[in-house]
Amino acid sequence: MEFSSFVARTNTCGELRSSHLGQEVTLCGWIQYRSESAASVRRILCEAPVESVVRVCGTVISRPPGQENPKMPTGEIEIKVKTAELLNACKKLPFEIKDFVKKTEALRLQYRYLDLRSFQMQYNLRLRSKMVMKMREYLCNLHGFVDIETPTLFKRTPGSTCPATIPVKLITACKGAGLTRDTDREHSSVWRRHTPAPPLSLAQLSSQLLSQEYRCQKPVKNVVLGFDTRKTNAILIKKRNRGAKEFLVPSREPGKFYSLPQSPQQFKQLLMVGGLDRYFQVARCYRDEGSRPDRQPEFTQIDIEMSFVDQTGIQRLVEGLLQYSWPDDKDPLMIPFPSMTFAEALATYGTDKPDTRFGMKIVDISDVFRNTGLRFLRDALAKPQGTVKAIRVHEGAKYLRKDDIEYIRKAAAHHFSQEVLPIFLNAKKNWSSPFAKFIVEEERLELTRLMEIQEEDMVLLTAGEHEKACSLLGKLRLECADLLELRGMVLRDPAVFSFLWVVDFPLFLAKEEHPTELESAHHPFTAPHSSDMHLLYTEPEKVRGQHYDLVLNGNEIGGGSVRIHDAQLQRYILETLLKEDVKLLSHLLQALDHGAPPHGGIALGLDRLVCLVTGAPSIRDVIAFPKSYRGHDLMSNAPDCVSAEELKPYHIHVLWPTDSEEESASATPSKHLSS
Amino acid sequence: MEFSSFVARTNTCGELRSSHLGQEVTLCGWIQYRSESAASVRRILCEAPVESVVRVCGTVISRPPGQENPKMPTGEIEIKVKTAELLNACKKLPFEIKDFVKKTEALRLQYRYLDLRSFQMQYNLRLRSKMVMKMREYLCNLHGFVDIETPTLFKRTPGSTCPATIPVKLITACKGAGLTRDTDREHSSVWRRHTPAPPLSLAQLSSQLLSQEYRCQKPVKNVVLGFDTRKTNAILIKKRNRGAKEFLVPSREPGKFYSLPQSPQQFKQLLMVGGLDRYFQVARCYRDEGSRPDRQPEFTQIDIEMSFVDQTGIQRLVEGLLQYSWPDDKDPLMIPFPSMTFAEALATYGTDKPDTRFGMKIVDISDVFRNTGLRFLRDALAKPQGTVKAIRVHEGAKYLRKDDIEYIRKAAAHHFSQEVLPIFLNAKKNWSSPFAKFIVEEERLELTRLMEIQEEDMVLLTAGEHEKACSLLGKLRLECADLLELRGMVLRDPAVFSFLWVVDFPLFLAKEEHPTELESAHHPFTAPHSSDMHLLYTEPEKVRGQHYDLVLNGNEIGGGSVRIHDAQLQRYILETLLKEDVKLLSHLLQALDHGAPPHGGIALGLDRLVCLVTGAPSIRDVIAFPKSYRGHDLMSNAPDCVSAEELKPYHIHVLWPTDSEEESASATPSKHLSS
Repeated sequence: MEFSSFVARTNTCGELRSSHLGQEVTLCGWIQYRSESAASVRRILCEAPVESVVRVCGTVISRPPGQENPKMPTGEIEIKVKTAELLNACKKLPFEIKDFVKKTEALRLQYRYLDLRSFQMQYNLRLRSKMVMKMREYLCNLHGFVDIETPTLFKRTPGSTCPATIPVKLITACKGAGLTRDTDREHSSVWRRHTPAPPLSLAQLSSQLLSQEYRCQKPVKNVVLGFDTRKTNAILIKKRNRGAKEFLVPSREPGKFYSLPQSPQQFKQLLMVGGLDRYFQVARCYRDEGSRPDRQPEFTQIDIEMSFVDQTGIQRLVEGLLQYSWPDDKDPLMIPFPSMTFAEALATYGTDKPDTRFGMKIVDISDVFRNTGLRFLRDALAKPQGTVKAIRVHEGAKYLRKDDIEYIRKAAAHHFSQEVLPIFLNAKKNWSSPFAKFIVEEERLELTRLMEIQEEDMVLLTAGEHEKACSLLGKLRLECADLLELRGMVLRDPAVFSFLWVVDFPLFLAKEEHPTELESAHHPFTAPHSSDMHLLYTEPEKVRGQHYDLVLNGNEIGGGSVRIHDAQLQRYILETLLKEDVKLLSHLLQALDHGAPPHGGIALGLDRLVCLVTGAPSIRDVIAFPKSYRGHDLMSNAPDCVSAEELKPYHIHVLWPTDSEEESASATPSKHLSS
Repeated sequence: MEFSSFVARTNTCGELRSSHLGQEVTLCGWIQYRSESAASVRRILCEAPVESVVRVCGTVISRPPGQENPKMPTGEIEIKVKTAELLNACKKLPFEIKDFVKKTEALRLQYRYLDLRSFQMQYNLRLRSKMVMKMREYLCNLHGFVDIETPTLFKRTPGSTCPATIPVKLITACKGAGLTRDTDREHSSVWRRHTPAPPLSLAQLSSQLLSQEYRCQKPVKNVVLGFDTRKTNAILIKKRNRGAKEFLVPSREPGKFYSLPQSPQQFKQLLMVGGLDRYFQVARCYRDEGSRPDRQPEFTQIDIEMSFVDQTGIQRLVEGLLQYSWPDDKDPLMIPFPSMTFAEALATYGTDKPDTRFGMKIVDISDVFRNTGLRFLRDALAKPQGTVKAIRVHEGAKYLRKDDIEYIRKAAAHHFSQEVLPIFLNAKKNWSSPFAKFIVEEERLELTRLMEIQEEDMVLLTAGEHEKACSLLGKLRLECADLLELRGMVLRDPAVFSFLWVVDFPLFLAKEEHPTELESAHHPFTAPHSSDMHLLYTEPEKVRGQHYDLVLNGNEIGGGSVRIHDAQLQRYILETLLKEDVKLLSHLLQALDHGAPPHGGIALGLDRLVCLVTGAPSIRDVIAFPKSYRGHDLMSNAPDCVSAEELKPYHIHVLWPTDSEEESASATPSKHLSS
């Protein structure tokens, strides 16, 4: 590798070693510290401000005895400078670039070009580049893939816009709490008590809504409750779109817009119909989700599609890809990766993206409590799908404090309005729990056996419908892991990368707002499991899809599927089951009729993957110029205002919101919740 | 290379040779022709429609004697099929996929997924992928470049929008022709005769405008003249923006827009300030130029930037890059490429992108005619910068017909309102030209000597201001080459790739509409020639820039520059010379003040480069899913209508044009000119 070809230096500053001793070198770089220099170059090297750019010529010599730094690769040598030249003087900096000087992220983003000089950003961006290059070698050079660019100026995809709605259950709850709908906009809705009742506190109102009538499994996913700042007897419901939206690009034809696609999904399938056989692309994708922490409006995926392939083929390809591109400074990856069905992931980890770096698995202990005297457990078990579940927090009784437990109980109540019974074991195997006295000896022994309970363990127990109970314990499992690590236990070794395939997802889900309607769990092009085909026409909700997710340390980093290649089947699913407007996809349906090969593929989220590999705290740390969580470029101040004149060629103009609309639109959820 | 890893076949159809004889193989593919088959598989292989997808298992055997096809790599073998399986039947196709069946381009684009199966599209896309991969290897693996993705949701760049204007000269000409401005819009202007004169014909009107008052060198670049279809006594001037425009992307904040950048120019420079040292990216870029033949609204460039580099460094890097990535089936490239100054290119080829595959250079023959009796030459020479120039069309008198000459004369008059004197030599060295009798013997001998005129050559001669005369002959040179090839001469060997650097461009140009104002010839970040620095403050129009273009066979395929790294100089050029609003670039100016290294770079137009390498007739043939010349995706029908409801989150609405506006906006120039 030649790092100094074509430029005015002989070496980079970082590559010199004692093997270069005696060599005449020319180096270019930034002044980091001022150090003593010969008189001839002192004016430049000692008087120029730190971070000024200089070129020096000199000889590589050994550091004086005692001044070697064995921690630095360059720590044995230094340069005896003969000539120095100031290439560009640095003006006063907004902050010191040294890694140990902590900066706010806003400041780092505003002066991104300075932040990029930090060791961590240099490491992250260079590692990213190398990993992607290795991936390309694996795909292009070893396995005959064709790198094909697909358009980003495209058209809207069906299902890409889900107008925000408030779940029916919440509407019922609002009405039940004596509220009437005051104003309703696309992104928010205000509900108000018109009776001259005393103002409700936010806590009262939301607990009234959440605890009783509104028991939706994941309310936080769709709405955020908050007070309208100026109407204390009203509640503001900020709606969030479930589906991601596509950015629009006005064209010069009146009323016609391109859209920036969320993925090259249609194109990759059309390429297979076009006989390209093996496609990949490092694809820029766009998703307009409004403000979301740790999401970016534009992101990158490793996009792959193959003809004549099945699920296993794609999985082996991706395993090989990751193994081949894995950084040299990490332990090599073991393949194949383990695999787990969606049902098993939910039952064991309470999520479709289990973090398998640690145990603490969910155990079904329903049978232990068939004859319990505890009414709350008995009632739960009597209901359909009723279960009792628990996780064992190893050494939880030793590490977790009383307020940790309280935090967990509150989290459970807040998110799920569900009870959790913490049971502790102390060193003498006595039970310590407010409910312990209701657990009989036989139950205790059986529980200990089933869950392999040891001294100083803690058990968290809950009861309820299978999916809900698993989901709750899955969340508490992660909360416990965080708390245990906060208290000094090491559960998740940063050197461990735990990959997992999750498979056999349901093909369809019931829509949250309209439970009688179906939506695709992955996307409408996913092929059903061949063994479930017969159910498609009778009980479609039971059909599993040929869809696979790749999970790393509890994060979904990829997802794909074998696609439908039969036009008739695709039309049936789009039209009859999903009630989509097939006109928008007529070109794809037609393509399937014109000799489409069986095909499948996957997309890996590159930003997230590199973030996990580098151990960066945020995906913003593996992107050269990221947007803030509100979608702003803090350096250049994008997005920016555009004059009406400049909008004219696009036949659009701005609809300025009224003052009150603007206020409620710009108010953030946290502001409301803290008021 | 494993083309059949991970999939349900043993080989691809195209890779079997006689070395595979006797092997059991499984192949997947499309039925091309029906041929005789064993009874067991006949139903599938003979009855399924052509282009149906099948999988066959069988043994590789030799073709029967006499049936070998030496032209095909697979021509010695065939498969004795044991089992066959129909994977997907093909419905009736809109056209036959065979290469010899000619399709309109509109049909090919509408069914792009079928067109992609053609030999040519497969070759083009696969070659493109391989070339890009080799470029990446060269940059990343051999020379330490870092592949960095830069945002495409950015903000407007200063100077990116040039509101369309009509050149002052044309306005004068219109007024001179008795017209008054009727309506004036951003993209068109209607001028009307209000006096009740008989309607002018288009020819009359435009010749009136073009011949006399309006002698602008390149009128076609800025305006197209045409009749307003319904007003025969009016003329429609369609304005074209000189500068390219940036697409806008509305954000969810009222009135704020991202823009899709024309190149990562600012980001690549900021990466150098950030110490990334060697950056490259295969970058998607966007340019909204309205309808332009053979341009795409999104296109791809190989984007490169280096620190501590000079012009020569970038040139040697790019030569190495192209040599390394050059396809194996072409002759290897010889490097370094020749280089020519802008002044020399203009004087010799009449253009800044000379096609150096053939001669026919422009010769200044002013001295020959210092004492000529031809008044038109004498007048021209008397003016400042007046010259007489000529090109020698080798064997032009033999190959070119009378109507070819007429065509050339008309082209000269149409584009330049300038006279061209064709002079022929026949086999007996007699001169044949309407002007021959005015050329005296001495002039004739001197001309023959200077231009090395041989039997059957033709000479095209013009007189006028240096730049204008060169520019005209440069265009006629290309017209002659086209005509000569049409008549059977081979001038431009398709196997020859003639690269050329053009350097020493002027840093600034006078604005066409406001000749006292300056604009950047390349872009405002280009560094001045160090030897011209002193002129910057006195005669900036004389300063040359450190800007280099790479030309291949007469096409500009790349351009770059050494950048300004001094904040003060950059501010002076932006603010004082170019009158730009520096607020929009404050982050860049600040970055230059914070330790910016000297740096430079280049961008290569990948689509055009691959188009030239493959010999494709259009860049649309090297892009998987191109847009039509009007910016439409004919397959999916993008851009498409979007409902007012879907525009709401972006706080915009459509300004529908009135009927008459729409008509004049949608009318194409050619329609007008032919009416």
